[in-house]
Amino acid sequence: MSDAHGIRRGRLRDRVAAAGSEAVLVSRPANVRYLAGSAPSGAVLLIGPGGPESDALLCPRTPEGAPGEGRCDEALRVHVLPAPGADAAVAAAGMAQAQGARSLAVEEHHLTVARHRALGSVAPRLRLTGLGSAVEQQRIVKDQEEISCLRTAAEIADQALGELLESILVGRTERHLALELERRLVDHGADAPAFATSVGTGPDSGRAGHRPTDRRVEEGDFLSVCLGADYRGYRCEIGRTFVIGSSPADWQIELYDLVFAAQRAGREALAPGVEYREVDRTARQPLEAAGYGEGLPASTGHGVGLEIVEDPQFAPSAMGKLDACVPVTVEPGVHLPGRGGVRIDDTLVVRPEADGGPELLTITTKELLAL
Amino acid sequence: MSDAHGIRRGRLRDRVAAAGSEAVLVSRPANVRYLAGSAPSGAVLLIGPGGPESDALLCPRTPEGAPGEGRCDEALRVHVLPAPGADAAVAAAGMAQAQGARSLAVEEHHLTVARHRALGSVAPRLRLTGLGSAVEQQRIVKDQEEISCLRTAAEIADQALGELLESILVGRTERHLALELERRLVDHGADAPAFATSVGTGPDSGRAGHRPTDRRVEEGDFLSVCLGADYRGYRCEIGRTFVIGSSPADWQIELYDLVFAAQRAGREALAPGVEYREVDRTARQPLEAAGYGEGLPASTGHGVGLEIVEDPQFAPSAMGKLDACVPVTVEPGVHLPGRGGVRIDDTLVVRPEADGGPELLTITTKELLAL
Repeated sequence: MSDAHGIRRGRLRDRVAAAGSEAVLVSRPANVRYLAGSAPSGAVLLIGPGGPESDALLCPRTPEGAPGEGRCDEALRVHVLPAPGADAAVAAAGMAQAQGARSLAVEEHHLTVARHRALGSVAPRLRLTGLGSAVEQQRIVKDQEEISCLRTAAEIADQALGELLESILVGRTERHLALELERRLVDHGADAPAFATSVGTGPDSGRAGHRPTDRRVEEGDFLSVCLGADYRGYRCEIGRTFVIGSSPADWQIELYDLVFAAQRAGREALAPGVEYREVDRTARQPLEAAGYGEGLPASTGHGVGLEIVEDPQFAPSAMGKLDACVPVTVEPGVHLPGRGGVRIDDTLVVRPEADGGPELLTITTKELLAL
Repeated sequence: MSDAHGIRRGRLRDRVAAAGSEAVLVSRPANVRYLAGSAPSGAVLLIGPGGPESDALLCPRTPEGAPGEGRCDEALRVHVLPAPGADAAVAAAGMAQAQGARSLAVEEHHLTVARHRALGSVAPRLRLTGLGSAVEQQRIVKDQEEISCLRTAAEIADQALGELLESILVGRTERHLALELERRLVDHGADAPAFATSVGTGPDSGRAGHRPTDRRVEEGDFLSVCLGADYRGYRCEIGRTFVIGSSPADWQIELYDLVFAAQRAGREALAPGVEYREVDRTARQPLEAAGYGEGLPASTGHGVGLEIVEDPQFAPSAMGKLDACVPVTVEPGVHLPGRGGVRIDDTLVVRPEADGGPELLTITTKELLAL
């Protein structure tokens, strides 16, 4: 991966130089990891004014004197701060000024007002400019190695979910099912869950981001789960809804078919060149037409990668068009207060028609299973 | 609790008014929760210029139109933002200006540069000042209800740890033991683990914040665990080190006795009026005297509460003195690279001598158990 990270830093350097800044301070952890291969707690990346040799990963000192987690790109100089508790961003600004930079582009959407001011004090000759979301934009299109990590993450999530479906569910609490899913994710090789696993039963089924409670699974319930694996930093997401007992009620079948059709329409809309809001419109429209427009979430999907929610957003006001090799979720859902609901959520990679269209990473069946 | 939250807001209002600001914007989630009783994702608290009636909790809109988690103080007005994706801090600045405030104190250590600028644009007549860590300072001394939550959190952690000790450990991986401890925390009533459970075996034992790996527990290992429960938002911490097999080696007994003595000295130093750095010195000195000064962590303990690491810090350069009713950890440890080590960590509440001295919340034995 060293090469990949060096190339990424080179692209960022070129882009920022074109915008008139001589050095860059990257502080947002996912951005540091993307460009350096590792992001120990509190570490920042300096893209220096003197070419690749002036780049450095600055890490707070840990008791053992070295970065605490992960290995970083071997081509990158690692500078461990001598003082315990020192702010790596402040040290990086001092380093950039010492290297002769006159301007430093910083992540104003990540640095706090207090840290920004400390940067200004330690390096008064440095003009601080805004990097904007340059790194986030660069992260949208993934390379083969990144997609391969996401594919593995999705396999792990499919396995964890598959095993749960073979076990007895009635009588168990949402919390227990969520913990069991998380244990199975780790069993199958996840570094960690990609996000807090959501399990909703009965009236809580179909609620986006529902936090598991002590409610127990009952006969006749809808059961919604949403989980994902973090594999080497890359995070996927899968969501499914099942029915508990032998035969779903008519309203359950109707609602399921509706959400399934909306989700399929959203998936089928994924192609290079399609506008983000067009994907949203396609998945949202069937639900609105059926009268469920009011309670819908603000988005029907989003990018995934080093963070579980990245650009793009599939939302009515989102601006931009899909590219190939962008991994996204498509996850419409309907929740009826007091009754429950349905969510279906997949992670896919956008591919051109000539390559077979969107690549589905999360392959667990989307039939309405009665468990 | 409503009363407690209203009183807390009143104290903050008085303090800020004395410093010349008419309104306050609290954005840091633990601070919002402390003052409002609940902190839905993205919510901020406005302490308005017109007394308690002008206070409001501003929450981003969720699909169901209401704050997503927890109940907040009933005496507090809740304002759900109409636009999906709107920034509650920006809305609060607009509201403060509309209420006639001329100045607004904000948390510059939490607000990003970009959000701070957005506040300035939406409310150009408002002078933005710094609140500093006023709320964090207010949070240091806990009331009876807070201490009672911490006591329950500690009981839960003791129970989870006690059950683990009764099970077979040899052959199991650090990851599995950590997951099992987290499941048991939830079984016993925790809302969640207070932080990522740490389990270290053999050469990884005794390392502060060690992330569990796939290494399996072996005969003769030291096994260190550090876990805690989150109960109603309040977080405790317990850390213990055990030896696996029938009889510990001499170096293990020596190292254990040393760390135990250091930790006991630190605990016994806890009293109202004692300087933070004096507590640190007391726990650190025996380890330094034994020649382990080099590799020691920057602090030997810290406050706990709505966050697992709060003020005070027990560190050589920490300024300030302990008060009664401050819950803290005392957690010295020694790690010998390649061999392993010992950490012992308790949560206690500082009490005056007349009340019996420090109250130990985490009561699991600190004898060196051979498991």
